[in-house]
Amino acid sequence: MQTVEKTHPKLQELKTSLLEINNIESAASVLYWDQATYMPPSGAAARGRQMATLHQIAHEKFIDPTIGQLLEDLRDYEASLPAESDAASLIRVSRHEYERAVRVPGNFVTKFSTHRSECYGAWAEARSENNFATVQPYLEKTLELSREMANFFPGYEHIADPLIDEVDYGMKASALRELFAQLRQKLVPIVEAITAQPPADDSCLHQTFSEAQQLAFSLKVIEQLGYDFQRGRQDKTLHPFMTNFSINDVRITTRVYENDLSQALFSTIHETGHAFYEQGINPEYEGTPLATGTSMGLHESQSRLWENMVGRSRGFWHYFYPQLQSTFPTQLADVPLETFYRAINKVGRSLIRTDADEVTYNLHVMIRFDLELQLLEGSLEVRDLPDAWNERYRSDLGIVPPSDDIGVLQDVHWYTATIGGMFQCYTLGNLISAQIFDAALSARPQIPQQIEQGNFTTLHDWLKSQIYQHGRKYTAPELIERVTGSSLSIDPFVCYIENKYGELYQYS
Amino acid sequence: MQTVEKTHPKLQELKTSLLEINNIESAASVLYWDQATYMPPSGAAARGRQMATLHQIAHEKFIDPTIGQLLEDLRDYEASLPAESDAASLIRVSRHEYERAVRVPGNFVTKFSTHRSECYGAWAEARSENNFATVQPYLEKTLELSREMANFFPGYEHIADPLIDEVDYGMKASALRELFAQLRQKLVPIVEAITAQPPADDSCLHQTFSEAQQLAFSLKVIEQLGYDFQRGRQDKTLHPFMTNFSINDVRITTRVYENDLSQALFSTIHETGHAFYEQGINPEYEGTPLATGTSMGLHESQSRLWENMVGRSRGFWHYFYPQLQSTFPTQLADVPLETFYRAINKVGRSLIRTDADEVTYNLHVMIRFDLELQLLEGSLEVRDLPDAWNERYRSDLGIVPPSDDIGVLQDVHWYTATIGGMFQCYTLGNLISAQIFDAALSARPQIPQQIEQGNFTTLHDWLKSQIYQHGRKYTAPELIERVTGSSLSIDPFVCYIENKYGELYQYS
Repeated sequence: MQTVEKTHPKLQELKTSLLEINNIESAASVLYWDQATYMPPSGAAARGRQMATLHQIAHEKFIDPTIGQLLEDLRDYEASLPAESDAASLIRVSRHEYERAVRVPGNFVTKFSTHRSECYGAWAEARSENNFATVQPYLEKTLELSREMANFFPGYEHIADPLIDEVDYGMKASALRELFAQLRQKLVPIVEAITAQPPADDSCLHQTFSEAQQLAFSLKVIEQLGYDFQRGRQDKTLHPFMTNFSINDVRITTRVYENDLSQALFSTIHETGHAFYEQGINPEYEGTPLATGTSMGLHESQSRLWENMVGRSRGFWHYFYPQLQSTFPTQLADVPLETFYRAINKVGRSLIRTDADEVTYNLHVMIRFDLELQLLEGSLEVRDLPDAWNERYRSDLGIVPPSDDIGVLQDVHWYTATIGGMFQCYTLGNLISAQIFDAALSARPQIPQQIEQGNFTTLHDWLKSQIYQHGRKYTAPELIERVTGSSLSIDPFVCYIENKYGELYQYS
Repeated sequence: MQTVEKTHPKLQELKTSLLEINNIESAASVLYWDQATYMPPSGAAARGRQMATLHQIAHEKFIDPTIGQLLEDLRDYEASLPAESDAASLIRVSRHEYERAVRVPGNFVTKFSTHRSECYGAWAEARSENNFATVQPYLEKTLELSREMANFFPGYEHIADPLIDEVDYGMKASALRELFAQLRQKLVPIVEAITAQPPADDSCLHQTFSEAQQLAFSLKVIEQLGYDFQRGRQDKTLHPFMTNFSINDVRITTRVYENDLSQALFSTIHETGHAFYEQGINPEYEGTPLATGTSMGLHESQSRLWENMVGRSRGFWHYFYPQLQSTFPTQLADVPLETFYRAINKVGRSLIRTDADEVTYNLHVMIRFDLELQLLEGSLEVRDLPDAWNERYRSDLGIVPPSDDIGVLQDVHWYTATIGGMFQCYTLGNLISAQIFDAALSARPQIPQQIEQGNFTTLHDWLKSQIYQHGRKYTAPELIERVTGSSLSIDPFVCYIENKYGELYQYS
């Protein structure tokens, strides 16, 4: 089905240059993976230097004027092709990336990369010592660098826009604020209604479950979902993530808590959703800027779709729960499926974003999103961030972190990337996941029944053909429109929440 | 004790450039480590590209004329310094490397790197299928490229000399042939005498030993020897190796056979010896060409010293054997120390170099060394290599491989590097290890008694101060002279073998 296009010699040249850059960036990703998985503690200093060097070289090579010239030379050729063709898409996406990259000076890339490593180290220490003050100067520097980064793209409406645009192309702070306000208005009364009731009993998840058995069970689950272990693997890290070094090497990580069965299980399914996207990209795109998910929000939609819409559904556990019970007979033999299902979908006012339930999760995200906009705007100082954080938790979630390590220090993001440009993707992901899952169910109504039978092929194949294979050919807004027939809306997500939790908690 | 030299601004510039190159090369080493340890099978193609790109960039950056100019500009400064100063040594070693590197064109580096990956893949398949024919064309190409490489350094006496010189600086095929001939003359009668006797009983090593317990015991041993786990780690690979990404990240690998206790144990100690060298280098040399072992032969001397002179000594097991017995009581409680000692030092005519005992090991090496010289000279064709291999095993070791997978296909070297320039280092390592161990015992006569008490500090510290810390400051011949007071000789090794095995086998 792949359209074979006559390749323009300049396009071949462009691809060769881009492949070299991709090789360097992929190498940097391997270094990052190693740092997070197996690197001995004293290796950190050299590792920081090594990653900074690779990022700098990749950046220098990408902004080389010969690439700009090739992109210019290819304008007529591109215009002669259908916009949806692979060649036109490759040129278009490369030009987009190139035009962004040339604005960022090489020495800024190096400076920022070095700072990120240092800030990450300071954060890890600050968090383990529960001492925000020690990381504060690093975070102030991050804020300064984040503004510097945004200002390489003048003409923005909000200073966060260039940072958001980089990962969620087409999105702006103003539109997101509007969208999030609508969503908050819907969620707050639902949270009120649910938390007015006695909490669900999730004690069945908090017995002792051996690490090895948890890992083995999770791997069995994702193998059945369709994760390709010939082209990936799972390791343990402090924070779960997905990374890839080619379409044929897409790895996930997880963490295991012996006293919390849901951690490893759902983080594994979550990262598997990310991995499906990268493993499912058209192999023809290998080594080009087309070979990755089209936006952070869309990427997150796939992790959340598999984690929540699939992995926390009753049908899924109708199939898998008996296997889980035989893996942990002492702990679960006497726990009915329905009790387990309610436990994994327990809603509550909590402190940790990554542990939050589907209903309150977006409230956690919005706190971070609002705070980072305020930091960028200058209406909030870094030194006041812990207080602002705690105040927002009080007002939005009705709960105050007793200490910063489970408050403002809990997420790695601000401490290893820009401030701004990241957190929106989590809520976008939730919204998009529901909209896409609805489309999947309309197109393939047999999916829920198949899930109950442990058959995920129809869903996986549909997502692959509709989304994964295209990589970055379509922008996220284009893809959402194309796949679901409408633009992004909060309605499918709100409807999903109302149906699922209305039934679970019988609120009105 | 570190001499603080006033740093010449051009030297600082040179160091900055060299550090960038070191960062890239270290990154390539991480990629190699990952390929050997954890990479999923389908990741291989992209990994080959990624490593080739990094090697090419490192090479291009190193042969950049600005580095040549800096080295020229530093000539007067270098001449003004004592040759043993860190600064003069750095300039000298960098110039040596630079002058070699500029002779090798960038496209050759890439071509060779790509070929190595392909040839490695073909070898792995050929070996598993026991079919030399499928890898033969790759090996023919390797031979062609090896000759091409040698011919970038015209004026050699033997075509192997430039390849040998790269890893064992100052060594030549003619001198090695002479040295090896002397050694063979001493070894052959010893082998004859020993193998005329009934073989030692090593059945105690060939019971079933759980992998986890073997690994745990090995780690306990090397921790006591002084391996720094803050700056290193051990993983499993098909073939054990040591690699390092900085002085503070020096990793080893091993393999475990549940039916052979000696594999994991001695390969772990062997790689630890290599790691001691890299972990012991003066931290001031980090990121410069001084920060590695001075030659392959000297590197191997350290692995063999710890593996054999220490790890296969009676004193070592006097200390560790009770611990090994409590780790494996079912298997070893009734095996006396002396039986175990004889088992781990069993001498026999065998097929596999890496499993060979200390006495016959060098005969295995000499077969390979002679064959690779013949291949390079053109007096042996690649297609005739399996027959030539088998014939040499018949004549030198009195045993013929029943199949190529445990014959000519057993070692990875020819299939992933040049043909020529590698195998000599193993015998050099054995010779040097004995000469250096003698020097250590003369300087610190308490060492044998300390080993019996499980105390390795004196030996480790002495080796560090005499050898490890210097990195590449001294060449191998200089270092041997400096540490032992004489030039390389076969006598200490022959004497070591005669003493140890004369006592063990009572031959005359």
